Amino acid sequence: MRIEILCTGDEILTGKTVNTNYSHIARRLEEVGLSASWGTTVGDDRAALLAAFRQAAARAEAVIVNGGLGPTVDDLSQEVAAQAAGVELVLHEPWLARMEEFYRRRNRPMPPNNRKQAMLPAGAEVLDNPIGTACGFALAIGGARFFFTPGVPREMRRMLDEQVIPRLLAMSGMPGTTRLKRFHSFGIGESRADQMLAGVEALAGPGGGVKLGFQAHYPELETKLMARGADAAEAEARLAPVIAEVRRRLGNYLIAEDDATLEGVVLGALAARSGTLAVAETLTAGRIAERLAALPAAEGVFRRGVIAPDLAALRAALGLAAAAAPGVTPAAAHTAAVALAAASGASHALAVLIALDPGEDRRELGGAVCVGIAGPAGAAVAREARLFGGREWIRLGAAELGLDCLRRLLLGLPTDEAVDFERR
Amino acid sequence: MRIEILCTGDEILTGKTVNTNYSHIARRLEEVGLSASWGTTVGDDRAALLAAFRQAAARAEAVIVNGGLGPTVDDLSQEVAAQAAGVELVLHEPWLARMEEFYRRRNRPMPPNNRKQAMLPAGAEVLDNPIGTACGFALAIGGARFFFTPGVPREMRRMLDEQVIPRLLAMSGMPGTTRLKRFHSFGIGESRADQMLAGVEALAGPGGGVKLGFQAHYPELETKLMARGADAAEAEARLAPVIAEVRRRLGNYLIAEDDATLEGVVLGALAARSGTLAVAETLTAGRIAERLAALPAAEGVFRRGVIAPDLAALRAALGLAAAAAPGVTPAAAHTAAVALAAASGASHALAVLIALDPGEDRRELGGAVCVGIAGPAGAAVAREARLFGGREWIRLGAAELGLDCLRRLLLGLPTDEAVDFERR
Repeated sequence: MRIEILCTGDEILTGKTVNTNYSHIARRLEEVGLSASWGTTVGDDRAALLAAFRQAAARAEAVIVNGGLGPTVDDLSQEVAAQAAGVELVLHEPWLARMEEFYRRRNRPMPPNNRKQAMLPAGAEVLDNPIGTACGFALAIGGARFFFTPGVPREMRRMLDEQVIPRLLAMSGMPGTTRLKRFHSFGIGESRADQMLAGVEALAGPGGGVKLGFQAHYPELETKLMARGADAAEAEARLAPVIAEVRRRLGNYLIAEDDATLEGVVLGALAARSGTLAVAETLTAGRIAERLAALPAAEGVFRRGVIAPDLAALRAALGLAAAAAPGVTPAAAHTAAVALAAASGASHALAVLIALDPGEDRRELGGAVCVGIAGPAGAAVAREARLFGGREWIRLGAAELGLDCLRRLLLGLPTDEAVDFERR
Repeated sequence: MRIEILCTGDEILTGKTVNTNYSHIARRLEEVGLSASWGTTVGDDRAALLAAFRQAAARAEAVIVNGGLGPTVDDLSQEVAAQAAGVELVLHEPWLARMEEFYRRRNRPMPPNNRKQAMLPAGAEVLDNPIGTACGFALAIGGARFFFTPGVPREMRRMLDEQVIPRLLAMSGMPGTTRLKRFHSFGIGESRADQMLAGVEALAGPGGGVKLGFQAHYPELETKLMARGADAAEAEARLAPVIAEVRRRLGNYLIAEDDATLEGVVLGALAARSGTLAVAETLTAGRIAERLAALPAAEGVFRRGVIAPDLAALRAALGLAAAAAPGVTPAAAHTAAVALAAASGASHALAVLIALDPGEDRRELGGAVCVGIAGPAGAAVAREARLFGGREWIRLGAAELGLDCLRRLLLGLPTDEAVDFERR
C-alpha cells in the first residue's frame, strides 16, 4: 500500500522547526510493517495545500496529513480538505460539546475561535484526540483515504497509534496486531550486530511475521523486532523465541530493553541492594552525573558528583595529596573512586578519567579513557580503553563505558570485554 | 521565485534519520531573503525520483536536491537527473582527477566505484565540494534550474552557502550580498521581543533591506537581522544603525551575539580578569558544569563542579556543618558559594539550588530557584526566582539564570532584573 506523509505549516516549511513529526510517523509505519513512499511539506497556504492534497490523492492509497487543525486563521486543513473532497464544512456537535467540556474542566471559558476546530468536512470520520481540542478526522479525497492529525507532537503520536495505524493495517489487509520489541546494546557496531543476529527472524516459525531492524544512536545501538499476528497472542508467540535468541546473542552487551536505559538499570541495581552512588569525572564534564542525577530513580541513590578539569584538580577536590605528575591510569581512576566513596559515604563510587591525545580536535583524535570503581567488600574495577572520533565522540563513549562498567560490576558480568569502539 | 527542496534517501524517507538537512536549507534561504515554497522527500527509488524531479520542474523555478551523490548503487541522483533532463551521463575528467588527488593525499587507493561520482549529466555545471568526493552540479530540467548537493551535512552546508545561494540570489535578481546578524537574549519571550523591537527595521534607511526575525530556543531567544545590499559595504551600512538600536533595546537581556554563547561570555569575562570558577548544583544535575566545562575556553578557568541531590547533601559535600532543616533560600545559596570558593580556591563560585513544588511532574509544576555567587572583595549575588513549566523546564531555566547572574555580576549589570519566565 502506498502511503504519503503530508506535513503542513510555515514553521516546518521555513525550517524554523525541525520536522521530527515526519520522522516519528515514518518510523512508526516501519515498525508495524508499513512504509511511507513519499513525503510532502507545504506551508499554511490554500493553493499549495489544495495542490498537495490532489497530488497525494493521485499518488497514494493512504495519506497522513499532519498539522493545520488549530483554532487560528492560518490553520486551513479542514477547509482545504472539504474543498478537495468537494463537500461542505459542517459543525460536528459532539466535538463542540467535547471542547466545551474540556474548557469547563479547566475552569476556563472556551475562546470563540475554538469553534472552528469542530467544523469538519461533511462525511468525515472523527479520529479521537483524548488530550487536546484538535479533532482528527479521516476522509476520502479522490481515490485515497486521508487521515488528518494535529501538529502537537504528543497529540499526533497518540492519535497515530490509537486511530490511524489500526485503520491503515485494516486497509492493507494485514492481520490486526503488531508488537515492537526493542533492545539497547553498548559495544557492538551496527554491521557486527547485523552479522551476530543473522537468521534470528527464522525462529518465529514457518509463518514468519517477525522483522529485524537497527537504529544507531552512538554509542548505543537499538535493535528492533517488529512482530505481526492475527491477534496479540499470536504476535507474542512468534516473538518469544526470537527475543530469547537476541538476548542470548547480544549477551553481556545488552544494556536495557524497551523504554529502560543504561542509567536506569544502574540506578535500579543499586536501589535493589540499598546502594548509593557518587561519580567523579574529568573531561566528561559532568555528563555522567547529568544522565543519572536528573532521573526520578536517582532519589535516594545518587549522592554526589564531582567534576574537575584534570586529574590533579580532581585529586585536590577529593582531598588526595598532590602527586608529582599524576598520570591518567586505571590505578589512578580506582584511587579516585576509593577516595570519593570514603568522602561521600556512598556504597559505590565511579571515576572516569580521560587523557586526550595531543593536537587539535579532529575526527581522528583519540584518547585514553580510564574507569575506576570502588564498591563494598573490595569490589573494584580498573579498566582502560582507547577511544577515537574527536573530543565529543570520546566524551560520549567514555560516559557510556563508565556506566556500563558499573552495570557489569553490579550484575556480576565481566567488566573488561572489548567494545567495538576501542582499539586494543 | 519559487524554490523547492527535494530530499532523497531511504534513511530520510523511513524516518531513521531526522531531516535536519531540510530545515538547515530552508532556514538559510530565509536568512538571505529567499523562501522554500515546497518540500518533497523520496527514497532511493528510480521511479519516485524521476516523478519527483518532473513535478518539481513543473512547480518551481529552482530546485535544491539533497543526497544521492555517493559512490554506491543506491545513489541515483546523477543518473535520474540525466534521464529527467534527456541527456547522457559523461565522465567529468577534472573531478575524477580531483578525487584521485583526494585519495592520494590520504595515502589510500581510490575504490573503483568512486569513479561513479565523476559521472555527471552532459552540460551540467560543477558545484565545487572542497571537503568531499561527492561532486555537486547544477542542471536545467524542464523550466527549472536544479542544484544537486551531497547528503553529508557539512559538505551540503558549505556548498549551499558558497555555490547554491549566490546562484539563487543572481537568478532572483536580488542584489548580490546578504548579511545575517544574530543576537541571543535571556529573559524576554518572543512576543515581548517582537513588541520591544517594533520598527527597528526602518532604521536601515529609506531603501529598507533589513528584515527582523526570531527563533525561540527556551530559555534563550535568538533575534536575527537579515540585511541585503548591492555589495557588502551597503549591507553593513544598512545594518549598522539597526544593530545599534537592537543592542540598546535588548539592553541587559542581551547575553551574546552571533556564534558567541552565554557560557562563552562568562568564561571570557573570567579569563579577562584571570579569574577562575567553581560551580555547585542541586537539581540542575550538573547541567551548568556541563555547559561550561566542555568548552575549550574553560581551560585554566573552570576549577571544580559539585553536584548533590539536595541542599543537605551539598552542604556535606562542601564541608559545611549539618543544619537542622536547611531551607533553599538565596542566603543558603550564597553560603554554599562562599564555602565552594574557599574549598576550590576559585576566584568566583556559583551555586544554584532548586526547591520544586510538591506533586507529580506536570506542565504547571513550579519551583523556587536560588542563585548564590561569591566573588573577590565581597562581590556577591543572592537571588531568588520562581520558575514554572515542569522539572525539565525549571532545570533549563535555573541553569540559564545562574549563568546569567554571573554574567551580569562580571559585567557590572544589575543581577535582579525580572525575567519573563519568572512569576513575582
